[in-house]
Amino acid sequence: MAVYTHVSAEALGDFLARFDRGELLSAKGIAEGVQNSNYLVETTADRFILTLYEEWTSTDDLPFFLAMLDHLAAAGNPVPRALPDRHGVAIQQLAGRAACLIEFLTGVSVSHPTPRQAHAAGAAMGRIHTDLADFAQARPNPLGADTWRPLLERCGRGMETIEPGLYDRVDTALQAVLADWPRDLPVAAIHSDLFPDHVLMLGDRVTGIIDFYFACTDIRAYDLAVMHTAWSFDAEGRRFDPAIGRALIDGYTSVAPLSVAERAALPTLAQGACLRFLLTRAWDWVNTPADALVTRKDPLAYWRRLDAYRKDDLFA
Amino acid sequence: MAVYTHVSAEALGDFLARFDRGELLSAKGIAEGVQNSNYLVETTADRFILTLYEEWTSTDDLPFFLAMLDHLAAAGNPVPRALPDRHGVAIQQLAGRAACLIEFLTGVSVSHPTPRQAHAAGAAMGRIHTDLADFAQARPNPLGADTWRPLLERCGRGMETIEPGLYDRVDTALQAVLADWPRDLPVAAIHSDLFPDHVLMLGDRVTGIIDFYFACTDIRAYDLAVMHTAWSFDAEGRRFDPAIGRALIDGYTSVAPLSVAERAALPTLAQGACLRFLLTRAWDWVNTPADALVTRKDPLAYWRRLDAYRKDDLFA
Repeated sequence: MAVYTHVSAEALGDFLARFDRGELLSAKGIAEGVQNSNYLVETTADRFILTLYEEWTSTDDLPFFLAMLDHLAAAGNPVPRALPDRHGVAIQQLAGRAACLIEFLTGVSVSHPTPRQAHAAGAAMGRIHTDLADFAQARPNPLGADTWRPLLERCGRGMETIEPGLYDRVDTALQAVLADWPRDLPVAAIHSDLFPDHVLMLGDRVTGIIDFYFACTDIRAYDLAVMHTAWSFDAEGRRFDPAIGRALIDGYTSVAPLSVAERAALPTLAQGACLRFLLTRAWDWVNTPADALVTRKDPLAYWRRLDAYRKDDLFA
Repeated sequence: MAVYTHVSAEALGDFLARFDRGELLSAKGIAEGVQNSNYLVETTADRFILTLYEEWTSTDDLPFFLAMLDHLAAAGNPVPRALPDRHGVAIQQLAGRAACLIEFLTGVSVSHPTPRQAHAAGAAMGRIHTDLADFAQARPNPLGADTWRPLLERCGRGMETIEPGLYDRVDTALQAVLADWPRDLPVAAIHSDLFPDHVLMLGDRVTGIIDFYFACTDIRAYDLAVMHTAWSFDAEGRRFDPAIGRALIDGYTSVAPLSVAERAALPTLAQGACLRFLLTRAWDWVNTPADALVTRKDPLAYWRRLDAYRKDDLFA
């Protein structure tokens, strides 16, 4: 949530001259993106998002993300494409960083989605999965199921500073989830991080699916399970809203099929999703000083969700 | 440079319903403002800046700032007005904060102004001073000349952590400046903080004068002196650019008069301006941990400017 790299108006003007997208009228650094710097840029022709990828971001995967977005946009999905310059080049250099000029999409992320909004968002994911069926590129999931145990071990006893006994409880839950982890469900390109803040809406209509920087190749139904964990609970993970959970699945299946095996695996996949976010949040927690200005997201909010999925079938 | 207060899309939609300015299409937190949170908001009618004044900001002075902006806008100056709601109310409440919906102005702040741009900016200040001649409201300058000695004393020996000997050198310079400080120059409402980042431009044209939150009643020529210190040097205060300095004054006097007494006082006023920024930066420096994520601005960049004004008449 910061602008790490300052781009002068002069440098931005020169950058825009590479494109056929109008003259610079305005540029504001926006507080979006965790690992990159973003500007909302207005030209005489249109508005854009300028993204600069910070040094600590691997840009090796940018071609995968951009190809996925192009594929989805060509099929009519509301996703932001990186625009090519006059020579057809989308990945540029600016202020010493890789940089892309990206389509601006209207819409706002809702904080408390209604069931109708959840239905629309589930359907948008179903549409994306359908349209990615013929997308050939692959990217292994750097936060896939096989990385969770090593990540837990790297967090180590630092887990105890979050809550005493947490390491052992996560260890036990992880064993159970990995033992049940489905091995033969359909695998495809997925978003893998479709939280409400990555869906832009106007009323009940989805106007944008954004932030594909965790997109990867993994179990397709896992994408829906991630969404279920992110949308169906309050922020602290204390209260499950069955109407939202149902609307997500109904919306999804109104567009894309969900096989019997996929449906049966959803509880396990959701528990895996909870572990994935619990562990990355725990890692950030134990590596971020308590007095840092960066807001640490509470890992326990995902422990509570995990617990809820273990106790009841929330997909029933 | 942060968004301190999160405004949900739902709350923002309700807020906009108080105005007759279209329906919410988009909202992005922008990295502007040091003491407030800002969003760039787009509706079906127009674009706006939404500003939320944080708890630690005194909002007592908001009516003064808004009246000054209204006065200047009515006279045709490109300044951002706070817009009234359907009931004529400009100062609203949102997310527990005082909040204003403010006109959006195009233009970008240049990092390295050219003499032509400096001339235009100087002229824009001259125009503002001319149009404020009949503005009746007053606000004492909370960072005026009489506050500098108390501020130096509060910084105290912490000044030595910036550079050994700095306290005594500033003390000596301050004595000289206060002894020469002009007592009978015209006093009026001034911006008092017109750095290049507070001027929006398109090419050589000024499209916006922004950030009036230091506006106050003080010596009118002091405003020009502040601008001179801010525009005519490189960021570190090492290199003075006489062409920029001259262009600022020429631009200003192409629109507004500068009396013989005002001209004669400019070197002293500029030294005072250097002390004002040196001291507030020093205060922030000694009160901000070196490892904080907030960027501390170097007080010595203003010591170097001060030194330059003491050695030569940079207005000759």
